[in-house]
Amino acid sequence: MIIVILAGGSGTRFWPLSRLRHPKQLMSVLGGKSMLQRTVERVLPLKPERIVVITNRLQAQESAAQLAYITELPVEVIAEPVGRNTAPAVGLAARLALSPETVLAVLPADHVIPDQEEFCAVLRRGAVAAGEGRLVTLGITPTRPETGYGYIEVAPGSCGDGPFPVSRFVEKPDLERAQQFLAAGNFYWNSGMFLWRADVILEELNRHLPELSAALADLELRDGGIAQEGLEAFYAAVKGESIDVGVMEKSDRVTMIPASFGWSDVGSWSALPEVVEGDDNGNVIINAAGTVLTDAQGCLAYGGGKMVALLGVKDLIVVETPDALLICPRDRAQEVKGIVGELELRGLKEYL
Amino acid sequence: MIIVILAGGSGTRFWPLSRLRHPKQLMSVLGGKSMLQRTVERVLPLKPERIVVITNRLQAQESAAQLAYITELPVEVIAEPVGRNTAPAVGLAARLALSPETVLAVLPADHVIPDQEEFCAVLRRGAVAAGEGRLVTLGITPTRPETGYGYIEVAPGSCGDGPFPVSRFVEKPDLERAQQFLAAGNFYWNSGMFLWRADVILEELNRHLPELSAALADLELRDGGIAQEGLEAFYAAVKGESIDVGVMEKSDRVTMIPASFGWSDVGSWSALPEVVEGDDNGNVIINAAGTVLTDAQGCLAYGGGKMVALLGVKDLIVVETPDALLICPRDRAQEVKGIVGELELRGLKEYL
Repeated sequence: MIIVILAGGSGTRFWPLSRLRHPKQLMSVLGGKSMLQRTVERVLPLKPERIVVITNRLQAQESAAQLAYITELPVEVIAEPVGRNTAPAVGLAARLALSPETVLAVLPADHVIPDQEEFCAVLRRGAVAAGEGRLVTLGITPTRPETGYGYIEVAPGSCGDGPFPVSRFVEKPDLERAQQFLAAGNFYWNSGMFLWRADVILEELNRHLPELSAALADLELRDGGIAQEGLEAFYAAVKGESIDVGVMEKSDRVTMIPASFGWSDVGSWSALPEVVEGDDNGNVIINAAGTVLTDAQGCLAYGGGKMVALLGVKDLIVVETPDALLICPRDRAQEVKGIVGELELRGLKEYL
Repeated sequence: MIIVILAGGSGTRFWPLSRLRHPKQLMSVLGGKSMLQRTVERVLPLKPERIVVITNRLQAQESAAQLAYITELPVEVIAEPVGRNTAPAVGLAARLALSPETVLAVLPADHVIPDQEEFCAVLRRGAVAAGEGRLVTLGITPTRPETGYGYIEVAPGSCGDGPFPVSRFVEKPDLERAQQFLAAGNFYWNSGMFLWRADVILEELNRHLPELSAALADLELRDGGIAQEGLEAFYAAVKGESIDVGVMEKSDRVTMIPASFGWSDVGSWSALPEVVEGDDNGNVIINAAGTVLTDAQGCLAYGGGKMVALLGVKDLIVVETPDALLICPRDRAQEVKGIVGELELRGLKEYL
């Protein structure tokens, strides 16, 4: 098995901790290791033959540096010259497989999955289904009517460990529909985690995205890797396309493995309290030298290594970095993206 | 005239910016110069013969360093070995006067007075009254029913520039009484600023605080200053007493000069917006590299030199220092004192 980690996101909703050169996945969001490091460590028990991290140029150096301590197996960091969404990266990774029957597990670098054991068990089941020639997507058993995720519908009454044939992919729903999905029981959160054989995904790319497939065929491999010139030419030639829209929503070989491990894509600061246990009052304080919490409730604070004193505040996000300070209510965490937009507009590149 | 600046306060309500060794008056509360520096600069147009700053040992060194740039006149920093409230300090300063008829103006170091011109005019009127042998206290014309200040009552119908004979001093009132005072028109805020002749205050100390007076008489002067041993012995001998309670509330020579300059004793973070002009939404942002304020209102932020982003927050105090971070609502700013108490209890001296 090859683990393909998609790690090129910008994570602007995690500003000011997340920056262009130091995005969410390279951050120590939970304290300690970064999300990328945790993603890699999570798959080590599966003993993959190699790990391929696909990121962008700004982040390649730090990604490689963060993973230098992984010596059990080869870790390769590929820097995309330009962003072209997920389909080209997925195709590229498939070309790297030495055997056509190698199973690739494609994982985002910025998800939080506390239950590593269950995660590996699910991936093993996924690998079996992938080995049989299917395109496997992992569907997370929903625990609330979340409107921030896409959903996967499977046949009503599907039960057990799967795989289940996928009826359709559903865009982020409104609350009413999300509640219906949750009640129906045959809808799962689309995790963006996939497994497939190299030959199978290349066939499907050929069927549904022939231009990308042709560009992939043109790619010359050198010592099992891709030469820099080839990479440049490939990304210059291909169009941006997501693997979800380009292949998964069209292919008839798609199947879903249900997963019940705790999972969050940690889309914004407000998602952190879902995955980090807080104190009795629901306060999550990370990277603080100490705290004085007086009548504070439901707050998330990144302390920048300082003594953090919260007095009489509720459901507040507080993030401190060496050059910036953010304060906002938890229910407006999505709008942090807008702050980054504003800084960009003003040309304040040093804060991006 | 000698200017006596009482500068030994701890200002715990301004934690975390205010610390034992770096209290409110040594802080750049308004950005730029410290309150002590502003206090000294404010009196320079009065051309006093010297300035005496009375502080404690922890703060003496920084006080002297902050005032080293004042070269127009002698500035002397006296470090009290122990705190004994204001009466001993006031007596000590009077002993330093070379002539008995020298007028001493006693000023706290931690008040904000934006209108320097009016302040000097009031002090000149005060000096005239003091020269005639009165104990002069400055009363601030109240602009709201403030419950955080003591009041001075003068005869009803007193008008003009004063001086007005003082009927009585009133402790901090409750809101109802404060509203009555404001409506009555003959009540003023007790500013803690005084003027008197050296001989007059020494006489009054002799009358009302004879033990202190005796200790003062024992003090030996050397070259117009006080020797360190003498200072130690004096503070070991005297009891703590405020000049307000010990003399002003008892003496029949007290008179009040009304003052209408903007004034605040800046008792806590919540008082700052009274003296610093905010933006259109009433936000006061100090010491920030820049701001992104989205739907923020009535906030006070000390940015620690950083980019400060406030999103969707109202009436919040945010203070960042190199080792601590404080967030609290403006209407709970008084409770910041309690945070310091908590840190003290826990023995976390580095944060005091």
